[in-house]
Amino acid sequence: MITVAVDASRPYDILIEDGLLVRAGECLAARFGTPRLFLVSDDTVFSLYGETTVSSLKNAGFDVETFVVEHGEKSKNAQNLFLIVNRLAEKYFTRGDMLVALGGGVVGDLCGFCAATFLRGVRYIQIPTTLLACVDSSVGGKTAVDLPAGKNLFGAFWQPSLVLCDPTVLDTLPPEQFASGMAEVIKYGMIADPDLFETVKTPGWKRTDVIARCVEIKRDIVNADERDTGIRQILNFGHTFGHAVESLSDFSLSHGACVAIGMMLVTRAFQKTEQTELTDKLASSLTAYGLPTETAFSADEIFKKLLSDKKRSGDALNLIVVRKIGKAEIRTLSLDEAREILRAGLVK
Amino acid sequence: MITVAVDASRPYDILIEDGLLVRAGECLAARFGTPRLFLVSDDTVFSLYGETTVSSLKNAGFDVETFVVEHGEKSKNAQNLFLIVNRLAEKYFTRGDMLVALGGGVVGDLCGFCAATFLRGVRYIQIPTTLLACVDSSVGGKTAVDLPAGKNLFGAFWQPSLVLCDPTVLDTLPPEQFASGMAEVIKYGMIADPDLFETVKTPGWKRTDVIARCVEIKRDIVNADERDTGIRQILNFGHTFGHAVESLSDFSLSHGACVAIGMMLVTRAFQKTEQTELTDKLASSLTAYGLPTETAFSADEIFKKLLSDKKRSGDALNLIVVRKIGKAEIRTLSLDEAREILRAGLVK
Repeated sequence: MITVAVDASRPYDILIEDGLLVRAGECLAARFGTPRLFLVSDDTVFSLYGETTVSSLKNAGFDVETFVVEHGEKSKNAQNLFLIVNRLAEKYFTRGDMLVALGGGVVGDLCGFCAATFLRGVRYIQIPTTLLACVDSSVGGKTAVDLPAGKNLFGAFWQPSLVLCDPTVLDTLPPEQFASGMAEVIKYGMIADPDLFETVKTPGWKRTDVIARCVEIKRDIVNADERDTGIRQILNFGHTFGHAVESLSDFSLSHGACVAIGMMLVTRAFQKTEQTELTDKLASSLTAYGLPTETAFSADEIFKKLLSDKKRSGDALNLIVVRKIGKAEIRTLSLDEAREILRAGLVK
Repeated sequence: MITVAVDASRPYDILIEDGLLVRAGECLAARFGTPRLFLVSDDTVFSLYGETTVSSLKNAGFDVETFVVEHGEKSKNAQNLFLIVNRLAEKYFTRGDMLVALGGGVVGDLCGFCAATFLRGVRYIQIPTTLLACVDSSVGGKTAVDLPAGKNLFGAFWQPSLVLCDPTVLDTLPPEQFASGMAEVIKYGMIADPDLFETVKTPGWKRTDVIARCVEIKRDIVNADERDTGIRQILNFGHTFGHAVESLSDFSLSHGACVAIGMMLVTRAFQKTEQTELTDKLASSLTAYGLPTETAFSADEIFKKLLSDKKRSGDALNLIVVRKIGKAEIRTLSLDEAREILRAGLVK
């Protein structure tokens, strides 16, 4: 078993091992005794792994309530938040009890926000079931639900007490969702680790090791800036333009596909003047997992969407740039510069 | 002006001065520049102090949006929370902007919880307009709304960035609400400060000084235990039985009246065996402000309500006992002991 220790405002461990799901109960009991558990999942994940997980927990002596939402981003809403905290209250859950998120980013963000706010904060466990959740959303303590006005606008920073990562659950992941996670894996290589970038440039690597390396990178960056006011921004490599593309596509493109496009855009734009070969290397890695390297949206369309996002961020536009694999820079741009970069990045 | 500095996880100052409300704008601008402000108030308070406050803010260069809820505890609900965060999102408020709570505990708790969760946390200012809010709820960072299943079950710990306390606003406070705050003032004397207890035993003392002393006491206790897992419990003197009485009365009795009854109950119970004169002193102070010292509810009724509260707290029953003015003790009780204390405390 690989253990990654995270020294956040609430320290916790990330455990990574093939087959860990069937041992979830014993892992939790060894660390926390047997508080009552409230497990949140979605219908897809619960039909695949609900029985295994709940059996493991019950066999270890836990009393488990379950709450299953529909799969998909639309479940990450305030109504589910209210339903869950009301259920917790009606069932007399206490500050000593725990929530468990069994699922991908939607379930993790929703369940984490419930944990952050029920009784002003109770503990929760992340059991990520997508590659994206394993390497990204289950680590770092960002929880939220969406509002009609936009994604992740209503939430809290609240660290999990434990993350249980069983890479065998990725076997049932639809290829597009696996690819979506791979965009983030490649991103970690680009911003922080040339060896990781090299390791994953074609499929066939060892999942436990790669996931461990990704969460170590995220752990180190988040440790330096838990509340996301400085260096944590480098995790947004590919996301500034990627979010705009995601939003323009009305979320028909996966998050990872849009991050892939965003990374390509920035890298291509900066290659024009300062780099060689980097764009091709990045494109080759992304293509190996079926990720896109281009978009049909125009520079003007993306720029317009960016402006409306910027209205909400309130800050100067910070763009994350990688000019050498393993090293990210934060560049503060004027709007005119951002538009130029978009134009340069979109022309092959 | 009196400044009480609070060294919480987010350090902030409490400013206390007669007439401070008309200078709210300049106080905020001097400290924070002029971010956009979103002011939450209730209809009663806003009709009295809304114009003064908003004018002061606008004259200092602030752009101010306002959101006015109905007065009363029923406004401290998830629906208002959701309405406010949606409004903030629609109006493009950013992480650099601020919320302002102009009102008593209901407005402060609601607005504080919105600030804790909009964009995963933005800054907020407390401008308390009741004695209870001045000396208690505006300090310490507990924010929450109520759920159908109970009070304050949905919330967060989130510290304000500044508290502006203008004691002249207490002039318009209904006598019952002033008395409700006095129960907490007397509580601070009982648990931590014989001089304060002496100062306020009859009306006629200086409000700024007494409010400052109360928030200093609360500040010191909260500093030692921000997340309420240990010593902060002594702030609950009078509250364990008081909450049960409040709930039994269906909230027709004020919070302070119930705390007064709770303090009397415990003090009387412990006097039987260990003390002399303390009960009379406490009763005399409470009576001087029109606060009750007895309740018509029976020991069995209060005990039954206590059991249902206990189900939610999940902990052993900790009772705060004062046997010498200025010194509080935490006693862990069995349920049988709690019932005996109730019986002893209810018999005059």
